[in-house]
Amino acid sequence: MTHQDITRQIVSKKSYLCVGLDTDINKIPRFLLEKEYPVFEFNRAIIDATVPYTVAYKLNTAFYESLGAAGWICMEMTVDYLKKNYPDVFVIADAKRGDVGNTSRMYALAFLKNMLFDAITVAPYMGEDSVSPFLSVEGKWIILLAVTSNKGAEDFQMSVQQEGSEKLWERVVRTSLKWGSVNNMMFVVGGTRPEVFGRMRKLAPEHFLLVPGIGAQGGDLKAVSSAGLTRKGGLLVNSSRAIIYADGTDRFAQVAGNMARDIQKEMEEYLSQARVI
Amino acid sequence: MTHQDITRQIVSKKSYLCVGLDTDINKIPRFLLEKEYPVFEFNRAIIDATVPYTVAYKLNTAFYESLGAAGWICMEMTVDYLKKNYPDVFVIADAKRGDVGNTSRMYALAFLKNMLFDAITVAPYMGEDSVSPFLSVEGKWIILLAVTSNKGAEDFQMSVQQEGSEKLWERVVRTSLKWGSVNNMMFVVGGTRPEVFGRMRKLAPEHFLLVPGIGAQGGDLKAVSSAGLTRKGGLLVNSSRAIIYADGTDRFAQVAGNMARDIQKEMEEYLSQARVI
Repeated sequence: MTHQDITRQIVSKKSYLCVGLDTDINKIPRFLLEKEYPVFEFNRAIIDATVPYTVAYKLNTAFYESLGAAGWICMEMTVDYLKKNYPDVFVIADAKRGDVGNTSRMYALAFLKNMLFDAITVAPYMGEDSVSPFLSVEGKWIILLAVTSNKGAEDFQMSVQQEGSEKLWERVVRTSLKWGSVNNMMFVVGGTRPEVFGRMRKLAPEHFLLVPGIGAQGGDLKAVSSAGLTRKGGLLVNSSRAIIYADGTDRFAQVAGNMARDIQKEMEEYLSQARVI
Repeated sequence: MTHQDITRQIVSKKSYLCVGLDTDINKIPRFLLEKEYPVFEFNRAIIDATVPYTVAYKLNTAFYESLGAAGWICMEMTVDYLKKNYPDVFVIADAKRGDVGNTSRMYALAFLKNMLFDAITVAPYMGEDSVSPFLSVEGKWIILLAVTSNKGAEDFQMSVQQEGSEKLWERVVRTSLKWGSVNNMMFVVGGTRPEVFGRMRKLAPEHFLLVPGIGAQGGDLKAVSSAGLTRKGGLLVNSSRAIIYADGTDRFAQVAGNMARDIQKEMEEYLSQARVI
């Protein structure tokens, strides 16, 4: 999928919403547990209800792995379902992988070739040769962690060794800009940290940013949008728990769809202010 | 498993060898492909042949994930086999995970509770709250990436902002020492970088270090051992490809066992020099 394909979808749906499928089997409606693949059934219903307002889905691999091989099958089924029924939608493996070259190649095979994810999130600690095997898969993306939404981001990412010098996350972005392009690389920037978007846009004015932390984690959509949107969109803002667990009854999918529509309406306003639409 | 349990095993086997089960279905003997779970059959034979000389096994999750759900099942079967037949052996998930708190909790559930791994490797980029959910599982370990064996280690881990100031990996070790103890935390230090072991031992004199990069990646066992061994052992040195792919015929397990024995003999010498035995 190209940068242009993603922008086209943002313009057509008037949305830059990414729905996070952090599907926890202990939080889905009880009646689904009778099905053979309850997590997939839940995902399918959420997808069908939210897809008119959504440009990307992000599957958090931890939730699937916690169910063992059956969870892995639900992940595969969900990606297949998305790619078969909604081929324009951008599908992200939120896997936070990254290892020595021959191992990263295996992860690229698992997520970007065997499964048809469009993108995978990657942790930068191990440097260029841990990232490049993902970048060499044609038409696919990596989303590199820059500034994450959690408190622990302050431990290393925000650290400086002397006042006024570069923070680690800035070094990560500046260095990694040489590894890929606006057509195969995005960055994660936590929605809980709107103050970093200005600096981020100086370093990477055109790159797409994946923004977690809106909703349950307390991020502010308006602040993030005004600081992060480009003329081509340039943002994918994720919401997981606030949408998928909005309701616990047999109306869960419909309520999730309504939540997604409300967010889309707000995004439409910001897209118009930023002259994307 | 306690620090003392690991030391006891090192003393009794006169070895600090960790065998890396980076099992690639394209590299195992062809005749195994007729079996229902070829990767598990390969692992089982390698384990039975190498276990007299080996104190730890490390499963690289990427290789299992590249086979989808069937690979995940082979990983589960391998851990079960080890825990049932060789309960004293230390079993590591080389998974390089780490995410926001509620997600790291799911990874801890997947690897340290549902599967019976003793330890999981964790990337430090996201800081304390991405690491602590693993540390809170009683009797289990995390192995935090400090200095990795690949070239990309130079991109961020070895970076300094001004001459003489602290490197990122040193900050990671110094900071994370507050999060856990010598009884639930180890560090990864690449065997390709024997020059960092002195500084590492100043920062963490007692912690176990997991050392990849010996063998195919070119690390020097003698240099690593003389700089890294403590009076209680304190090292787990990993070898993967050099052992498990030493032979491609139906004698593969026997040859792998011989390779492991040769390494153990060399380790016995270093253990004696360091007065561990």
